[in-house]
Amino acid sequence: MLEQQESRVKVFVLGGDGFCGWPCAVNLADAGHDVLIVDNLSRRKIDIDLGVESLTPIATIQERLRAWTETGGREIRFSGLDIARDYDLLLDLIRSERPDAVVHFAEQRAAPYSMKSSATKRYTVDNNVNGTHNLLAAIVESGLDVHIVHLGTMGVYGYGSHRGATIPEGYLTVEVPQPDGTRFTEKILHPSDPGSVYHMTKTLDQLLFHYYNKNDGIRITDLHQGIVWGTNIEQTSRDPRLTNRFDYDGDYGTVLNRFLMQAAIGYPLSVHGTGGQTRAFIHIRDSVRCVQLALENPPSSTDKVKIFNQMTESHQVGALAQKVADLTGAAVNYLPNPRKEAVENDLIVDNRCFIELGLKPTTLDDGLLSEVVDVARRWADRCDRSRIPCVSAWTKTQAAAIQAP
Amino acid sequence: MLEQQESRVKVFVLGGDGFCGWPCAVNLADAGHDVLIVDNLSRRKIDIDLGVESLTPIATIQERLRAWTETGGREIRFSGLDIARDYDLLLDLIRSERPDAVVHFAEQRAAPYSMKSSATKRYTVDNNVNGTHNLLAAIVESGLDVHIVHLGTMGVYGYGSHRGATIPEGYLTVEVPQPDGTRFTEKILHPSDPGSVYHMTKTLDQLLFHYYNKNDGIRITDLHQGIVWGTNIEQTSRDPRLTNRFDYDGDYGTVLNRFLMQAAIGYPLSVHGTGGQTRAFIHIRDSVRCVQLALENPPSSTDKVKIFNQMTESHQVGALAQKVADLTGAAVNYLPNPRKEAVENDLIVDNRCFIELGLKPTTLDDGLLSEVVDVARRWADRCDRSRIPCVSAWTKTQAAAIQAP
Repeated sequence: MLEQQESRVKVFVLGGDGFCGWPCAVNLADAGHDVLIVDNLSRRKIDIDLGVESLTPIATIQERLRAWTETGGREIRFSGLDIARDYDLLLDLIRSERPDAVVHFAEQRAAPYSMKSSATKRYTVDNNVNGTHNLLAAIVESGLDVHIVHLGTMGVYGYGSHRGATIPEGYLTVEVPQPDGTRFTEKILHPSDPGSVYHMTKTLDQLLFHYYNKNDGIRITDLHQGIVWGTNIEQTSRDPRLTNRFDYDGDYGTVLNRFLMQAAIGYPLSVHGTGGQTRAFIHIRDSVRCVQLALENPPSSTDKVKIFNQMTESHQVGALAQKVADLTGAAVNYLPNPRKEAVENDLIVDNRCFIELGLKPTTLDDGLLSEVVDVARRWADRCDRSRIPCVSAWTKTQAAAIQAP
Repeated sequence: MLEQQESRVKVFVLGGDGFCGWPCAVNLADAGHDVLIVDNLSRRKIDIDLGVESLTPIATIQERLRAWTETGGREIRFSGLDIARDYDLLLDLIRSERPDAVVHFAEQRAAPYSMKSSATKRYTVDNNVNGTHNLLAAIVESGLDVHIVHLGTMGVYGYGSHRGATIPEGYLTVEVPQPDGTRFTEKILHPSDPGSVYHMTKTLDQLLFHYYNKNDGIRITDLHQGIVWGTNIEQTSRDPRLTNRFDYDGDYGTVLNRFLMQAAIGYPLSVHGTGGQTRAFIHIRDSVRCVQLALENPPSSTDKVKIFNQMTESHQVGALAQKVADLTGAAVNYLPNPRKEAVENDLIVDNRCFIELGLKPTTLDDGLLSEVVDVARRWADRCDRSRIPCVSAWTKTQAAAIQAP
């Protein structure tokens, strides 16, 4: 709980019913901030369309909020609007509530879902771009000084860059040789090279932020997050009705959580391609802590967009599967890759900003086993094995490869 | 007329009723290509909303097409759909017509209009991003190999870059120093720094193109066009019903055409700010010729997005006003700048791709006077002087400046 009234922040959590949004919201409330969740519940509705459910049984948002208050939590309010569609309601809410900050998770966040069909590609672009742009336009129209903390992705950088190159926190210093033989040095937004339509929308967000920061002075922190693993944080473990969602299906399940669940039910761990893909990871506990740090350390009104790499470890996917296999005795199954991506890459990431702000990472070695026992094994009987395979293919060539016997 | 059947291209011109689209469409038909215009007529409808009209009297699209055929032109067909809204109709049209290429002008193209209000910002982003993305998704879904020729803008590069630096055609070669003292060289998409919400949408388009070219192999030529001046081309001068539009209002009028019209009616030439802003220009005749060259010289299926700088001359806005004043005797009026932009910049642009393909530029010195006499003076009595001032301000600070006495 915050000691001083003046460090309390009034904050909207857009997408505060989702996998990252919900633990983020309760963590911020627990830290003494005034939290209002804004969510159109699209994540639950997509589950209905896909015919899947969270492995963990999750309560409705209304029940979650009741349980939070009943267990002594600081009140969290809820508004059920769609920021990509209900611009006028969003503007009214900003004008009447006058938030200090907005944490923005309200985007379609699964790469495989974004590649499922022309319709899901179009939904992802329309929803993510208009949602982010509506937020920016509404803040400008309100005339208020509202700090935006946005959840981006490490995937904006791409995974095809030079071997051994370090990925900086958002900006890259380059030297530009000129035709006349001179050269100049410039700090540029790191070139983007997204690997899916979903990741592409986050590269579009970056340009929206760059422009609105430059033209209107909006204060923005963009968090380039790695792949999140784990399920609960201390606050969501206080009552079963507070439990966070755990996705294991081929569209929304993130790679490490899928391995943990597969190990728990005796399903061979699905590695797509060679397993040589290296990705960045972060535990959900560290993710919510990073958002809090970003919120409590806002940029000044003259700063350009502040970009943090929100990740703690990099691992090759195949090595990760082996780690889980060693821990649990599971088998590893190498499958054709539905994604169009580099067979293998390295990934060296600068993440010193959060470490300097005091982040103490949860390592894989600390957290993996408890996740398997407390979550994956506990709810194993809720798993629908038919929803485990990844069926969204990036191109027709990839679709043919995964359908081959 | 093309000599050989096999060099004939079946092409959609999206936005083919607009200022650049209409002359482009008739030029391509005249060159022997099969043209189908797709347009939702939004440009005419925005004129209705704004209460303005083209200085030149323009016929309806149906009358234009009748007149074109009556005067011996190769048939041009028309489909009145909205590519940002009518995805299924667009897909059906691509599937049934199987075009070889699509020229894409179907975006809201005025920077001042895009900054007019929160509603016009949102319309511009929603319309331009979804329109471009629908086109890309529909081509992928159709499974056809369709070359996209897109009208972008020189404004994607921004006008704040280093003095004396040359703007290359889309891609910039940079050297990247690493923390360990090594460095590597990379060719990147030129960093973008848009000056309005409109320009920002064109930077978003670039990332859409980059991704769909990489993932799906779509062949794309992106034309980074300068400010277009002039009105008619030879083909639109054949009959009064073929005349092109001429916008002079504060939202849609482009700077040089506004000077010409102001000179014709004895209104002082409106220079906003110091006039030190340097911009790139191209005559409408050269613009349609460049589109034809791009169409007839498509990239191969393994090429990355081909980017051309579609401009022929750079001028400071104040010097341009002085040139028109010298030619016509008009006065020059320096006004507060409604835009948030650099007071002064230089602009050195590489445009050798089109020159090497055979473009012979129309220079300002050749074309200015005939434009004043043939268009601006001829239709001067149709001008509504009250619509000349620029009233769209980039920020509240700019709005206050232009409203001050």
